[in-house]
Amino acid sequence: MTNSMRNIFYLSDGTGITAENLGHSLISQFDKTQFEHVTLSYVDSIEKANVALATINKAATESKSRPIIFATLVNEEIRKILASADALFIDVFNTFIGPLEQELKIPSSYRIGRSHAVPDESRYTARIEAIDFTLSTDDGNNTYRYNRADIILIGVSRSGKTPTSLYLAMQGGLLTANYPITADDLRSSELPQSLQKFKEKLFGLTIDPDQLHAIRTKRRPGSHYADLSECEYEVKQAERWFKEYRIPYLNTTSLSIEEIATRILAQTGLKRRAF
Amino acid sequence: MTNSMRNIFYLSDGTGITAENLGHSLISQFDKTQFEHVTLSYVDSIEKANVALATINKAATESKSRPIIFATLVNEEIRKILASADALFIDVFNTFIGPLEQELKIPSSYRIGRSHAVPDESRYTARIEAIDFTLSTDDGNNTYRYNRADIILIGVSRSGKTPTSLYLAMQGGLLTANYPITADDLRSSELPQSLQKFKEKLFGLTIDPDQLHAIRTKRRPGSHYADLSECEYEVKQAERWFKEYRIPYLNTTSLSIEEIATRILAQTGLKRRAF
Repeated sequence: MTNSMRNIFYLSDGTGITAENLGHSLISQFDKTQFEHVTLSYVDSIEKANVALATINKAATESKSRPIIFATLVNEEIRKILASADALFIDVFNTFIGPLEQELKIPSSYRIGRSHAVPDESRYTARIEAIDFTLSTDDGNNTYRYNRADIILIGVSRSGKTPTSLYLAMQGGLLTANYPITADDLRSSELPQSLQKFKEKLFGLTIDPDQLHAIRTKRRPGSHYADLSECEYEVKQAERWFKEYRIPYLNTTSLSIEEIATRILAQTGLKRRAF
Repeated sequence: MTNSMRNIFYLSDGTGITAENLGHSLISQFDKTQFEHVTLSYVDSIEKANVALATINKAATESKSRPIIFATLVNEEIRKILASADALFIDVFNTFIGPLEQELKIPSSYRIGRSHAVPDESRYTARIEAIDFTLSTDDGNNTYRYNRADIILIGVSRSGKTPTSLYLAMQGGLLTANYPITADDLRSSELPQSLQKFKEKLFGLTIDPDQLHAIRTKRRPGSHYADLSECEYEVKQAERWFKEYRIPYLNTTSLSIEEIATRILAQTGLKRRAF
């Protein structure tokens, strides 16, 4: 079967995450719709390399255009096998390792899959500890733990707090709590006491009322909670607090989880514990 | 202050995640201890480029060795400013965009920060839905939802289920449940009924008893739960079930969260819903 999709292969002797990340970033500069993405992880033996080669060459035959390979392969023999594929071979690893060796004046260790494989102990511990903390303080739970928090995200329901908290914990090792500002909270003229005590750790998330309305409608169609006027009221009041209490904040509308998390770090200057 | 650390800068007009990922992967091939990592995100104006340039040149002056820059900068003017830094400039973006344009025979859109910026709607929705599901079914909760699960991770307490579940949900958009096999469960000769019904969705995580003992001791020192003999018993019994019920499984000892998640995908053939 011939098809007009351009096949993109991410090849790695490790997880393939590095190849995927770079490949996506580059491919996103072109029209995305015409690509088919396949990741081949753990291509770490001659046998597996030959299987991968056959897969790629088959895709080349069946498609109108040759595949594109993003490769992070350390082993020279495996690399050579796959570089022979009927494809554009983008050698992510080898392109840069030479200049780095020259600059650092030491040879690279040529160890396979190091970046996402053997974790350093302290990074692993920091991430697990942060995930535990974030789960236990999700959605306004266990506010008595806020003294340990690195940051406390606050905002109305469905403004992006939970995914962002988990991302900051997992990728940054940050003890990230989150507290939902409810319609009940907003009836008071004051920020809840449990938050006021940790004002310097607070970071606000806000969102356009229209998008909030759409998200909440999907969740609870026709509810008061999803009403556009309710969304408008909550967002307006929450933003009023952010300004009144000088809480730094961010509008998350149409931002990805990565983007929200990175902007929070940039805005607060908070440093990751795990990297 | 002169220091002997080699400064690594990740420069981007977006989040910098792509530059960080590639840089880490390459740098992990050298001795890690001598590096100091700094990410400068959202360098998206001439003014910010000049600030970044000054930061890098200052680091160059204060260190014995010149910095290394991993850059994903789309804008040509900004790129030129930073390429003039007193540093090894690794131009991640530009190195590969040329060959890709040639291959695809279309010019790239040169849009800044596309890869982690504007999320495509379906990917965003898939990730949020998966995170919601995974939180609601964490730690054996709401087993009645297992009919919707893409995969159900099972294993003894502290074998890595929760972080892996969250990673698969966040990065893969997979509805990932997890169920802790308790000492109570293991007293029975049979796998719990709630799991037997979804046998084809189960994936086991196991871990070396020594490491499990160390992790549990940190959590609850001196407890029966942390006893080496208890850890040995639980692991042995859980593995017996994995074999008896032909449940695919993985030993997570000294694997990173990324590595565990990627191996699960490779072993099961499960495809990500969000990419």
